[in-house]
Amino acid sequence: MEAMTERPSLPLADTVADLRAIVRGWRSNGLTVGFVPTMGALHEGHLSLVRQAGERADRVVASVFVNPTQFAPTEDLDRYPRQEAKDADLLASAGCDLLFLPTPATMYPDGFSTSVRVTGVSEDLEGRFRPQMFGGVALVVAKLLNQVQPDVAVFGEKDFQQLLVVRRMARDLDLPVEIVAGETVREADGLAMSSRNAYLDPAGRAVAGKLYAILREAAARARTGVPAEAEAWATAEILRAGFDSVDYVAIRSAEDLSPFRSRITGPARILAAAKLGQTRLIDNLPV
Amino acid sequence: MEAMTERPSLPLADTVADLRAIVRGWRSNGLTVGFVPTMGALHEGHLSLVRQAGERADRVVASVFVNPTQFAPTEDLDRYPRQEAKDADLLASAGCDLLFLPTPATMYPDGFSTSVRVTGVSEDLEGRFRPQMFGGVALVVAKLLNQVQPDVAVFGEKDFQQLLVVRRMARDLDLPVEIVAGETVREADGLAMSSRNAYLDPAGRAVAGKLYAILREAAARARTGVPAEAEAWATAEILRAGFDSVDYVAIRSAEDLSPFRSRITGPARILAAAKLGQTRLIDNLPV
Repeated sequence: MEAMTERPSLPLADTVADLRAIVRGWRSNGLTVGFVPTMGALHEGHLSLVRQAGERADRVVASVFVNPTQFAPTEDLDRYPRQEAKDADLLASAGCDLLFLPTPATMYPDGFSTSVRVTGVSEDLEGRFRPQMFGGVALVVAKLLNQVQPDVAVFGEKDFQQLLVVRRMARDLDLPVEIVAGETVREADGLAMSSRNAYLDPAGRAVAGKLYAILREAAARARTGVPAEAEAWATAEILRAGFDSVDYVAIRSAEDLSPFRSRITGPARILAAAKLGQTRLIDNLPV
Repeated sequence: MEAMTERPSLPLADTVADLRAIVRGWRSNGLTVGFVPTMGALHEGHLSLVRQAGERADRVVASVFVNPTQFAPTEDLDRYPRQEAKDADLLASAGCDLLFLPTPATMYPDGFSTSVRVTGVSEDLEGRFRPQMFGGVALVVAKLLNQVQPDVAVFGEKDFQQLLVVRRMARDLDLPVEIVAGETVREADGLAMSSRNAYLDPAGRAVAGKLYAILREAAARARTGVPAEAEAWATAEILRAGFDSVDYVAIRSAEDLSPFRSRITGPARILAAAKLGQTRLIDNLPV
C-alpha cells in the first residue's frame, strides 16, 4: 500500500478579526511577523518572497487579494488568473503560516470613502500608462499593513516602481514596518516570472524571453555611454525581437526614478514595459 | 518660608524614535495607551479629552503640533496661538504621561509625497469653506496614530465633522485604534471652548456667547418642526445677535452628515459656523 500524501494544511483567515486574533497570539508569545501581499496566481517569484519573509520573521502571513481599485475598467481584472487551492498549497510548501483571503466587501465595505495618493515617484513610467494603479496599490497596501501589522513586509523588485511607491507611502504615513525588496526570479531564458506570463501562447513566450537579454545589454551600454542612446537602442531591439509595441524603456535613479542627464551619476535601474498582443510585460534590472 | 511649588515635570519626545521607545517600554509592561492629538493653545476642553483618555488607558500621550497642511494660505497658521511651556504644565496636571512635540520637518521631511483624502462626510459644511482642511487633518491624524500606535484616541465633538472624518479614515485604512468622542466643554454662558476664542475682544466675546442658546433653541424647533425652517430661524438670530456673517447652520444626520428632507428621521446634529470680524467660530449640538 502506498503512503497517503497529505496536502499541507495552511490556516486561513478571511476576516480582519480572525487575522488579528491569530497574529495577536503569535505576538503574545514574543514571535515576530513577516508579510507578503499577493494577487494570487502564485509562482516561484512569490514563493521566494515568502521564504525571504521567513528568514526575517518567526511567522509569515501571505495575502491573496485581486485588488479591484488598482485595475482600470479596460484592464484584465476579470480574466486575472485565479487558483486559490493551488496557491494555498504553494504557500504552505514555502513556509507560510497563515493565508489571509479577504473578500472585496471586507476590504471596501459600503460607505468606504478614503483614498491614498503618492505623487512624485508614482507619476512617470507605469503611472503614465496605468494612471489608476498606484493610488489603488498605495491604498490596499496601507490597509493590508494595518490589518496584519507585520514587523517586515517583502515586495518583489519585479514591480520596481511599486516597491518605491510602497516605500514612500510607508515612510510618509509612519507605518511601523520595514519594507524589504525581494529579487526577481527568472525562467531559464531570463523571462521574469509573472502571473501574466500565463496569457502568452508558445510563440509569444519565445519572444518574451528576449526582453531580459536586451535590457542587460542596454544596461551595459548605459554604464559607459549616454542613457538616452541605450534606451533608444533597447526600444528598437525589443520591437525587432517581435514585441508589438514598447510603452517605455527608461534608465532612471534607483532611488526616486528621476532621469539622468548625459551620464549616469548614481545608483540606476533600467525599466521597461512592452506589449505582445494583449499581454503587457514589465521588467527591470540594476544598471 | 513658603513651600517651593514645583512645576509638574512632563516627559517630552520630539522624534518618532524617542516616542516609540517610551511607548514600547509601556507596552512591554502590559500597559495600554491613550492618545489626544492637539494643536496646542490648550484649554479645559483639551484637558477633558486627556482625562477621558486616562480613564480608558493606563498611559496617555498628547501631541502638540500646529499642522501646516490643514491651513489655507489665507488662514491663521502664523498667528495661531502658541504657548508650549504652559501647555506642558496643563497636560501634566490633567494626567498626561508624555508630550509628543514633533517639528514640521519631522512630520513632512524633504521628498514627502503622500496624501490621504476622505470623500463624502468631508465635503460639505466645513469642507465647503475650508476645502484644504480635512485632507490635511486625515493625513496628520493617520501619521500621528501610526507614530503613537495607541489603543484609543480621543477627539473632541467640538469639531464634530472632523471627528466623523477621522472615524471614517481610521475605519477605511484599518488603523488598529478605537476612536472616542469627547464632549464639548463650555464657558458659563455656553460658549464652546476654543483656542480661537483668544482672538475675541470683550465686545466680540459677549456676542459669541449667544451662539449656544440660539443653536439650542433651533434644535428644539427642529425636533418638532421642519429642519430647514429651524436653520433659517437660527441664521437670522445669529446675525441679529451681532455676528458679521453666517457660513452655515445645518441640521444633519449625526452619522454621516447627510441632510434630512422635511422631518428628522434619525440621530441628528445641528452644526454652525459664523464670523465675528476676522474670527470664525464653529459649534454643534445633538438635536
